[in-house]
Amino acid sequence: MKFVTLANGTPDGRLHIASRDGELAVPAQNAVTLQQALETWADNASVWQEQYEMLNAGEAAGAQALSSDNVLAPLPRAWQWLDGSAFETHALLLQKAWGQPEVGLNDRPLMYQGLSDRFLAPGATAMFPSASDGIDFEGEYGVILDAVPMGTKAEDAARYIRLVVLINDWSLRALGPIEMATGFGWLQCKPACGIAPLAVTPDELGAAWKNTRVCLPLQVRLNDEEFGRTNGDEMKFGFDELIAHAAYSRNLPAGTILGSGTVSNSNYESAGSSCIAERRAIETIKHGEARTAFMQHGDRVLMRTETEAGDNLFGDICQTVNVMDRQ
Amino acid sequence: MKFVTLANGTPDGRLHIASRDGELAVPAQNAVTLQQALETWADNASVWQEQYEMLNAGEAAGAQALSSDNVLAPLPRAWQWLDGSAFETHALLLQKAWGQPEVGLNDRPLMYQGLSDRFLAPGATAMFPSASDGIDFEGEYGVILDAVPMGTKAEDAARYIRLVVLINDWSLRALGPIEMATGFGWLQCKPACGIAPLAVTPDELGAAWKNTRVCLPLQVRLNDEEFGRTNGDEMKFGFDELIAHAAYSRNLPAGTILGSGTVSNSNYESAGSSCIAERRAIETIKHGEARTAFMQHGDRVLMRTETEAGDNLFGDICQTVNVMDRQ
Repeated sequence: MKFVTLANGTPDGRLHIASRDGELAVPAQNAVTLQQALETWADNASVWQEQYEMLNAGEAAGAQALSSDNVLAPLPRAWQWLDGSAFETHALLLQKAWGQPEVGLNDRPLMYQGLSDRFLAPGATAMFPSASDGIDFEGEYGVILDAVPMGTKAEDAARYIRLVVLINDWSLRALGPIEMATGFGWLQCKPACGIAPLAVTPDELGAAWKNTRVCLPLQVRLNDEEFGRTNGDEMKFGFDELIAHAAYSRNLPAGTILGSGTVSNSNYESAGSSCIAERRAIETIKHGEARTAFMQHGDRVLMRTETEAGDNLFGDICQTVNVMDRQ
Repeated sequence: MKFVTLANGTPDGRLHIASRDGELAVPAQNAVTLQQALETWADNASVWQEQYEMLNAGEAAGAQALSSDNVLAPLPRAWQWLDGSAFETHALLLQKAWGQPEVGLNDRPLMYQGLSDRFLAPGATAMFPSASDGIDFEGEYGVILDAVPMGTKAEDAARYIRLVVLINDWSLRALGPIEMATGFGWLQCKPACGIAPLAVTPDELGAAWKNTRVCLPLQVRLNDEEFGRTNGDEMKFGFDELIAHAAYSRNLPAGTILGSGTVSNSNYESAGSSCIAERRAIETIKHGEARTAFMQHGDRVLMRTETEAGDNLFGDICQTVNVMDRQ
């Protein structure tokens, strides 16, 4: 199944079922919002499945064409957003470029809690205080969860994964090292994220959903130029392990969004990167200096994931940078 | 004004106006929950003020006696919980005990985002995975905010402070250094916080509300023994400065809760501490070893703030530790 949330003047929008090709939508029965759907999933999933099949068969009454104009993030706000960093190549490249010990990831997942009271619409303009903060995108995969009890182990965790999403985790790179050095983690350097329009059930990925990993290339284009096609299959920790880490000392509420961290591959010479900071690290290692600039006012990033059959799985993130301080 | 939220079977409870002495309550008019009240404050504050005055005069129809049995946290869940660390003595003591450079706080506030989908009731049992994680309380003051626009400066920030609260920020100390070393900050080491029953407007503090600081002693008792009476007046950064820090690159939604961090005083020999970790640091500096144990199953912590006139300003936090792994 695929879900999409349309603007209706409320903070949470109106939940719709989207067709597999992302062209059509009908209002979801028995749930006004995705949060409500997640809280009543067991009771209603079969109803939504039927709506989905009717829509794909061209038989759903009242189907409307989906327009990017009124699409919100699938969950326009959530009770919790936990972001991991589960790709070892990303860690190794940044460690090497920054002259740190090249230890990669250790045996504990890295994770922080980020802003979740607002997720940007996939086509939204993203507002930032200043271009001097090093504005960067981060392409990553995420899962949206059912309620997870405290103490859940990794081997029991996959059952709580309801939906898979594509996320643009905006980052202000100049603030990152300052906030990391305090040990308190990231706050100012992590503004609101964007999410692609379609939240999909794992079965939509077919064989590309393996060991709770999204084994598909995440395409990134910066100002219409190819930037990366990194595959999610190299996640060191699966989403099952990230869930267990997150739930060690807390119950996770239904609607928790959990991120993989920047998707990154060991064949980065051909795959490229899904954030500017990683490309700058590669340039620094290779040339002794970073050559790619961070984003400026008006710059645009596009993110998309296609299935092996060439279908646009989540729809597009296409966001433009708006800098408040342009003196 | 004072607000209290009573259990009614819903996640957000039912908002009531409480009398100044915390003995009586009536359902708030025009808002079912505190979140709704914060979102409609300008329209309704005068109505609640009138309810409050009637209640204090003994003239409110339908007033009920407040019982600790059905009191929830004032905001049982919030869109955002940002916790600072604004007391320099606390930082200096821990730095000294841990053999780190004694630099105190620098000129940027320390802050992380914590779990906000659930705040424990003031009388709740608090569940933890294991006593080996170093279970500790942290007494601190907090403010609940109106919506704050991104980029708000400290000199404009005080106007967004709607309510003042007393918070017990539970911490798992054995996990703290591990999570700080990653630079990603705290996640597993910060389970759900408790909040005292009464959320009060700043005017209730009278002269004890100075420069957006709570200049009153925070009393802590551990298993009925006095543990600390630390005053909030030594906050290096006021709540106004913490708001500006938090809002640098994000809009803060109405209902954001912002914490001061562990209240701590330079005269700690007489004032004591508001967390065990700080007392252990003092013991380590003095005796070469920590002597006070972290909390065990069944241990109980009480927190209370009295005004200069001796009134119980926020009501009591009284929480008992429940450890899941008691083998």
